[in-house]
Amino acid sequence: MSRARPELDAVHENRLLSRWAALLPRPAPQLGAIHESDAELLPLDDDRLLALTLDTVSEELELGLFRSPETAGRVAATAALSDLAAVGADPLGLLLAVTLPEGSPEAAQEEVARGVGEVCRATGVAVLGGDTGTGARLALTAAAIGTVPRAGLRTRVGARPGELVFVSGPLGAGNALAAAALFGRPLPSCDERAFRPLPRLRAGRALRGLATASIDTSDGLCAALDQLARLNGLGVAVEHELDALLAPAAAELGRELGVGALPFLAGQHGEFELVFTLPRERLAALGLVARELGWRPIALGRTVAERTFTLNGAPLDGAAIRNLLAECGGDLRAYAEALGRLGLEERRYRSAS
Amino acid sequence: MSRARPELDAVHENRLLSRWAALLPRPAPQLGAIHESDAELLPLDDDRLLALTLDTVSEELELGLFRSPETAGRVAATAALSDLAAVGADPLGLLLAVTLPEGSPEAAQEEVARGVGEVCRATGVAVLGGDTGTGARLALTAAAIGTVPRAGLRTRVGARPGELVFVSGPLGAGNALAAAALFGRPLPSCDERAFRPLPRLRAGRALRGLATASIDTSDGLCAALDQLARLNGLGVAVEHELDALLAPAAAELGRELGVGALPFLAGQHGEFELVFTLPRERLAALGLVARELGWRPIALGRTVAERTFTLNGAPLDGAAIRNLLAECGGDLRAYAEALGRLGLEERRYRSAS
Repeated sequence: MSRARPELDAVHENRLLSRWAALLPRPAPQLGAIHESDAELLPLDDDRLLALTLDTVSEELELGLFRSPETAGRVAATAALSDLAAVGADPLGLLLAVTLPEGSPEAAQEEVARGVGEVCRATGVAVLGGDTGTGARLALTAAAIGTVPRAGLRTRVGARPGELVFVSGPLGAGNALAAAALFGRPLPSCDERAFRPLPRLRAGRALRGLATASIDTSDGLCAALDQLARLNGLGVAVEHELDALLAPAAAELGRELGVGALPFLAGQHGEFELVFTLPRERLAALGLVARELGWRPIALGRTVAERTFTLNGAPLDGAAIRNLLAECGGDLRAYAEALGRLGLEERRYRSAS
Repeated sequence: MSRARPELDAVHENRLLSRWAALLPRPAPQLGAIHESDAELLPLDDDRLLALTLDTVSEELELGLFRSPETAGRVAATAALSDLAAVGADPLGLLLAVTLPEGSPEAAQEEVARGVGEVCRATGVAVLGGDTGTGARLALTAAAIGTVPRAGLRTRVGARPGELVFVSGPLGAGNALAAAALFGRPLPSCDERAFRPLPRLRAGRALRGLATASIDTSDGLCAALDQLARLNGLGVAVEHELDALLAPAAAELGRELGVGALPFLAGQHGEFELVFTLPRERLAALGLVARELGWRPIALGRTVAERTFTLNGAPLDGAAIRNLLAECGGDLRAYAEALGRLGLEERRYRSAS
């Protein structure tokens, strides 16, 4: 059973997760409480932990944000492997449970396999097995399993005030795809065929012993930063031009809709980058590792002792942003419009200051 | 990639699985080809293998065969753990991915947790974590993970002609529940509140070094026997009064509908018993183990060198039974009626002989 964590339970999604933990028998030997890690961690032997995770793609299909089974396959595989990347695990493999649509099971199966296969080939991970059936609509769940050396264990907890905060790459493509589908803006950059996120497995492993905490951006950048801050009892100051954080699709749609960058960083349809914290004295070591991988982590800002969340000096209510969809009664269009208004406010604040 | 296995691909479901294997990158170090084990097996260290499995419960909910989220939770947890039981694994835990219905997410969450929790408490297994979201209807996927000592490894392959075939307990409750829902026969014994299957984890472990092969009956007894026979290149002779194999719910509904026992053994809504093969010289050892567990395995019959499948002397076409739902175009009612006709034929054959 989890103890009460009011700072976490201010967020609707955290309450839902806490409730599962309260309702279900949780294990004794598990490392890390609920919320504290992207993947579940179990002791395996003297040297290693087992890392496990499960991700379902069904809501995006139901809401029409993804139309192609290939995207669903790609995102399911990437989402599960991204959780392994966040804890720096070496993947052992994927399992897939797929409900194929009754009307065209074979066509959907081929497309799902194409999307999953692309991620597998790019990462060198294989599909071990799974479960398959048919139903009214496509849904899929991917499980990923891996191992982490005990010595290099990293969870969401471990950051201290005054550390640097990084993100592993450009942001906003997931929210751009969702917004383009929602508002009928068929920009080529926002087409789901252009949405090909890959899990940051190599970066996740390279950060062993360097990063003090990490989390992926699967629920968007703001949720990732807010959750890290809550779990570590500190605040985050983002000090980076927001427009310069955006992936091309998000930048283009932001211009087209005139709402600026914030909605693409605040929306919950995230991507699969890693947010991580780094003590300043490890900056040179990060530089070496990044050069070796041909990888360009982005310095977002820093952690602060006060529990405040600021974007270039402007305060942001992380819980309010994360509860916005629930506040909108789950209405995705109202949610997107509310995010758009947030973006306009942020731009007004910036031009005024 | 899997090589062609015509004897397996005579069965529609095997073809679907073979197709996944052909479409997806499969790993080098995996033990056992596709079809050959209830759980995926991976080398872990010198002494142990990792056993992994994933099971989705959504079709039964969509078709109205289960109405209660509690049943769905119970069956998802039992189905995943039953795959571990079939390979004789020690479970490490479960992960749950749940799509909660938008209308009443909290009520469904509580019920799902009650069903899962009941299985967890009965087996001493805990839920490690998972994924949660909302959607038009309830769906859940359970992943189970465990370890198997290399020395005690058991898959579906390894049976030889002339061995004894056992099942771990009474059969037909899953098909009885489905048939009662389908034909509107609200017998108390066929109510889903009475359907509380548990995975045979203790028996599965106790069979290490005893059973030569095993498979669970999650797709029904006939499918389990037929699949074992195909994979081992042999036949099965069932020599047991069929009525005496039935769980009380199946026996009662069989009498009420006048169709006999066969439909409840042949239908694909199985239960979670283990079918296993045993060399005759290990019969005494099985007796000891069973006594210790207070468990009564049922001697079903024997394996034979000829590739025939017989029920008390009458030949049965295993592939035809397993393809019946696909032959009925997926129409569950037509399928159940076809199973009923099979039952009547079997009874006529028996009274004539």
